[in-house]
Parts: sequence; C-alpha cells; structure tokens
Amino acid sequence: MSSKSVPDIVVARLPLYLRALSAMQTSGKVFTSSQEMASWLGISSAQIRKDLSHFGEFGKQGTGYSVTSLQDTLRSILKIEREWPIVIIGAGHIGSAVANYSGFAHRGFRVCAVFDSAPGKIGLRIGQHIVQDIAYLPKVVQDYGVKLAMIAVPADAAQAVTDLAVAAGILAVLNYAPINVIVPDTVRIENIDPVLHLQHMTYYLA
Amino acid sequence: MSSKSVPDIVVARLPLYLRALSAMQTSGKVFTSSQEMASWLGISSAQIRKDLSHFGEFGKQGTGYSVTSLQDTLRSILKIEREWPIVIIGAGHIGSAVANYSGFAHRGFRVCAVFDSAPGKIGLRIGQHIVQDIAYLPKVVQDYGVKLAMIAVPADAAQAVTDLAVAAGILAVLNYAPINVIVPDTVRIENIDPVLHLQHMTYYLA
Repeated sequence: MSSKSVPDIVVARLPLYLRALSAMQTSGKVFTSSQEMASWLGISSAQIRKDLSHFGEFGKQGTGYSVTSLQDTLRSILKIEREWPIVIIGAGHIGSAVANYSGFAHRGFRVCAVFDSAPGKIGLRIGQHIVQDIAYLPKVVQDYGVKLAMIAVPADAAQAVTDLAVAAGILAVLNYAPINVIVPDTVRIENIDPVLHLQHMTYYLA
Repeated sequence: MSSKSVPDIVVARLPLYLRALSAMQTSGKVFTSSQEMASWLGISSAQIRKDLSHFGEFGKQGTGYSVTSLQDTLRSILKIEREWPIVIIGAGHIGSAVANYSGFAHRGFRVCAVFDSAPGKIGLRIGQHIVQDIAYLPKVVQDYGVKLAMIAVPADAAQAVTDLAVAAGILAVLNYAPINVIVPDTVRIENIDPVLHLQHMTYYLA
C-alpha cells in the first residue's frame, strides 16, 4: 500500500473509477463488475482489475464489487474521506466559474476563499464568497491549514502568484493559467488548459 | 510518422512542449535545448529527446533547437497550422468562461458558436457570441465543418447533448461535465474536471 509502489498513471485513474461508481450509485446500482465499469469508462476491464489489485483484493467471485464499499476504499486511498479546504486565486471568468462549481461538495473539497489583487475585484461577491485581497492569502492558508490552491490568473502573473502560495504553505497547485509554472520538488502541480486537450485530439483528426 | 507508431502518452506531451516553446519565444529566446525545456517543464531532457525522436531529427549539435522551427514542426504534427472551429454547448458559468477564454487564438482554435437549450440563456451575449438555440447545432456543425465540441452542461444533460453533437458530425469532444459520457469508437473524448486533478494530488499529501 506504499504510495511509492503504485505507478502515478494508476493513481490518476482512481478518481475516474470513483466518479463512475458515484454515477452508478446515483442510478441505483448496488454491485458492479470490472466489465461494467469498463463499459462506463472506455478503459479495459483487465486494466481496471490490475489497477485495483495494487491496493488489495476487492470484489467477490459471482457478486463483483460493492458500489458503496469500493467507493469508500477509493476515498480512503485518495485521502478524500475528509474534506480539504481549497483557495482560488484569481476572480476572473475562470476563477469565478470554478468558485461557483457545484462539483466539489461530497467529493472531498470545499472552497474556503477566493483572492484577487485588482481593486475592482476585491469585495465582489462570487457565489458564496467575497473576493479577498491576495495580501490575506498567507493568513488564510495558515489559519485554515490549506494545502491546495487553484491558480486562475493571467499567464504573466501565474509564476509570482504560485510562488506566493507555495511560500504560504500550499503543497498542491491546480494551474488554470496557460503557462507552465515552476514549483519546488516538494509541491505537486497539475495543469488545466483546454487547448492542451484540443491539440491532443486534433493530432488524431484527418 | 504514422500516428499508429507513436504512443498516445507521447502525443499528449507535445502540446506542453509547444506551450513552453511559445513562452520561450515571448521571452525572446531563439534557440533552446532539451535541458532547458526540461527545466521549464519538469520533464526529463531524455524524455523530451525521446518523444521528439518519434517524429524525426530536430536540433543541431551545439546550437540546439530553433524555437520557431520546432514550434512550426509541432504545429504541423498536431495539425494546428490551420485554425479549427469549435462549438461550446452550455452557456453556464463554465461555458461562459471558456467562451471568453483568450487562449484559443494563435493556438489553433476559434470558437464559432455557443449553444444552450434554456430560453433564459438563448439570445444572451457572451464575449463575442450570442447564445444560440441548441436546435441549430446540427446546421452550424455542418455549415462550418466543425469537428470539435466542448460540452459544458450539467451532468444529467451531458450524454444527450454529446449524442446530439456526435450525430451532427462532431469527432472530438472535450467534456467539462463531471460525468463520463460514452462516444462511438470513431470519436475522441477528453475530460476536464478539476476534482479529478485535486483527488489525484491529495493521494500524495500527508
């Protein structure tokens, strides 16, 4: 169960499995199989079984996986049986959309603050949040023990804002700015840029 | 150069390389090296050289890669030396943010229409677009030869909207709805869900 022994590409698929299981539960399923999960996900059933085998033995011959207990197991592996506070930095179009996103609840996350540096943005209401001056970021990160930040600022501000967040104690960054930002080895970073996905897909178009 | 011979994981990294090269050009660089790209990207220089070697010989001993010509080569490989029209389906928070995203231009894409089914949304202006009734989706897809669609509707509408888009001729779907949608084997699909990224990162947090 050591995280070192599991390839990162396997870890990256676990949230997809959890998402499919949640959808199955919503649709009333009590048990499922790797074959059924495969048909929901477009991933082979052998791959799903192999991925899950890294974490122990699940499922019973004949009945398959319990939808609720496999969800509980995945939540525990992904450490989202708790609720992580997250901060959003940048209150433009993307930051506002993310702050209003209803998909965090019951999936392990809660937006605890939204920050911007523009006087015209500070004090505005976005969803349930009042945009705060980024000067308060370190205090909020420390007071709430925040480890995760979503960066949604323009490209030319992204590195400075990331540096500020990391200095405040952030350990995982989800970067929406369309630029690579550099973080220390002790900090995780992932990028969301729709153009990266679109360019990946056009490769395969005739 | 056959697409069959190149692993998909390699193709997925090419847009990252292109994004780093664009940033290098903006900062005035004329030549770069796999070592320098590695330091910008957090990917090893050996990996970068190996990935690029799938597509031929680039760079010269001593001078490295030309920033502009490697960009041109990557654009050609990714088929974005042209500009692809894309449609956005769903004019809520996420769809609106994406419609306003300034990062498509000069990266191979142009939003040609935004659709919704809600009478309260149809006719609204979002950025440069007037939200159109989704009933017009098939006509727009055919008239403009659109191959790519971004789906930004609620989870419970995502499959039906995707089916409609695929029936109209869409061949690549970027899905923002927090649910897996099923497409035929002839259609590419990628997902953007911030929670998948956050859950992936919490696995590594203590």
